[in-house]
This record gives sequence, structure tokens and C-alpha cells, in this order.
Amino acid sequence: MERHSLELKPIGIIHSPYKNTKEAPYQGYKSEEISQMEVFKEFEKALQDIEGFSHIIVIYWFHKSQGYHLLVKTPWDESLHGLFTTRSPHRPCPLGLTVAELVAREKNVLKVNGLDAIDGTPLLDVKSYIPSIDEMVVVKPGWLEGKLRKGRS
Amino acid sequence: MERHSLELKPIGIIHSPYKNTKEAPYQGYKSEEISQMEVFKEFEKALQDIEGFSHIIVIYWFHKSQGYHLLVKTPWDESLHGLFTTRSPHRPCPLGLTVAELVAREKNVLKVNGLDAIDGTPLLDVKSYIPSIDEMVVVKPGWLEGKLRKGRS
Repeated sequence: MERHSLELKPIGIIHSPYKNTKEAPYQGYKSEEISQMEVFKEFEKALQDIEGFSHIIVIYWFHKSQGYHLLVKTPWDESLHGLFTTRSPHRPCPLGLTVAELVAREKNVLKVNGLDAIDGTPLLDVKSYIPSIDEMVVVKPGWLEGKLRKGRS
Repeated sequence: MERHSLELKPIGIIHSPYKNTKEAPYQGYKSEEISQMEVFKEFEKALQDIEGFSHIIVIYWFHKSQGYHLLVKTPWDESLHGLFTTRSPHRPCPLGLTVAELVAREKNVLKVNGLDAIDGTPLLDVKSYIPSIDEMVVVKPGWLEGKLRKGRS
């Protein structure tokens, strides 16, 4: 049983127009601002050919998150929901996940659209977004039923 | 600059029919086996109403991953690709990500389909999968162009 602590070192840092959590968009509502993801120089080679991708998966650390509740209220409605059915930043493992649009690359810096991380957020991972494995036909959207905006791309 | 180490504690453990990395499906090919994600008892309440969701995002720790290369070969072709354009388990932050089908819940255990994590994998996070924010219309699939299987759900 792996209950001991695991250790991570960031691969970069996110420079964002959002200086604090109040300025960032609500969860579930995409940012329209450009953020700059600075991947540390020693990892630059791992970005080879990434400019060929229009979308990438970004995993980051909610560094302003402190503590969590097992039941939470979200912007979607007034009810309490199980934390693991939400995208709240306040989680036991404060990992953030966004599928972002890659707008441009300049050496070790990726300019992306759609990221709501705040300025100074530690960047943990970048992965290719692969529709054939990352997209699902959702037949049951849980408590989000009827609350989802349609037609987004 | 957040270059110091970050610490995580797993929220559970994944019991899988795949006992080692050789048995697990290739990256990009979905498992058809049922895995059991045991969420530790103290987090059970955070699963409230999760059975209403057909799909969930699962983040886990590639605990058998050792080291990494910045350029890697994948099952898709013979070329070397930038690590961050791939889904290789050998990464600076060994974080795995799968959108899995939630088949059933029994108290603190989630039975899921489509997870290729091996037995004993530390579970880090579970999030709701929200098509309106997690799905993108990919206009540039990078080096994966023409290599993607179509029509998966």
C-alpha cells in the first residue's frame, strides 16, 4: 500500500494575466487570455515538434490551495457535491488539469489560450491531447446534467 | 520561482488485472478490463453522487517509472518525439491521466473500464469529466496526424 508521500519537481512555471484566484475565471469557464508556460531550459528538447499540435494537456499545481472539504459547493448550483465529482482547486492532491489551445511556441515558452491557472503556478506536465483516447461519449453527466453549455469547441 | 519539491499523498490505490507494465495495453490503446480503484476510507464522502457520472478523469502515479528521456520512441511510429508530445509513462513528473468509464461504485471502491494502470498504482485524484471544457476540436494533431484511430467512443 503506497500511503507514503510522493515527491514532484515542477518542469516549469506559468506566467498568467491572472494575479490571484479572484481574477481567474470560474472553474468550467475557459479563460480567453493568453498565458505563457515557461518550461525550464533543461526540458526544452522534450518540446520538440510540439508546435504541430493545436491542443495540449496541461497539468499544474494549485499552489494557492490550502486544505479541502469532502463536500463542496460549485459555481454550477447551490447544492453540496462530492469533491471528486467537481473541479475544485481545493483537493487532497492539488493537481489542476486543462486542455489548452497551443497558440505559439518560442523556444522554451508555450503560449496557450484557455488556461485559468494564476500567475506563478508550478507547471508539472504537458502531454499530447489525443481525441481518440481522451474524448468520451458521456451518457450520464451526473449532477452536471442540464448545467453544461453546449457547442463549445 | 517554484523549483523546490512538492509533496503529494495518494488518495487511494488501483487494483488492476495488469500485474506489470508488460501486461498493460500500449499507451493510446484503451484497456477493456475492469480495474478497481480503492479510494481510502477517509475520502469516501468525497465520492458522493459519483455514480451519476458515466465517465471520470483519473490521475495516478506511474510508480514503476524510473528516469526519462527528453526524446522518446512511441508505439505509433519509429521516429523520436519530444517527450511532452507523447503519453510515455517515463516523465519528470510521472503523472498518468485517463478518462475512464465508471461502471459501478461500491462504497469507497470505483469499478472502471478503460484504465491501463498496473496493479498497485497510487491513485492521486478523481475529477468530473466535463465535455464542454475537456473536449477540443483538434485542428492540428502534430506528429500523430494520420495515426489516430477514428470513431472511438
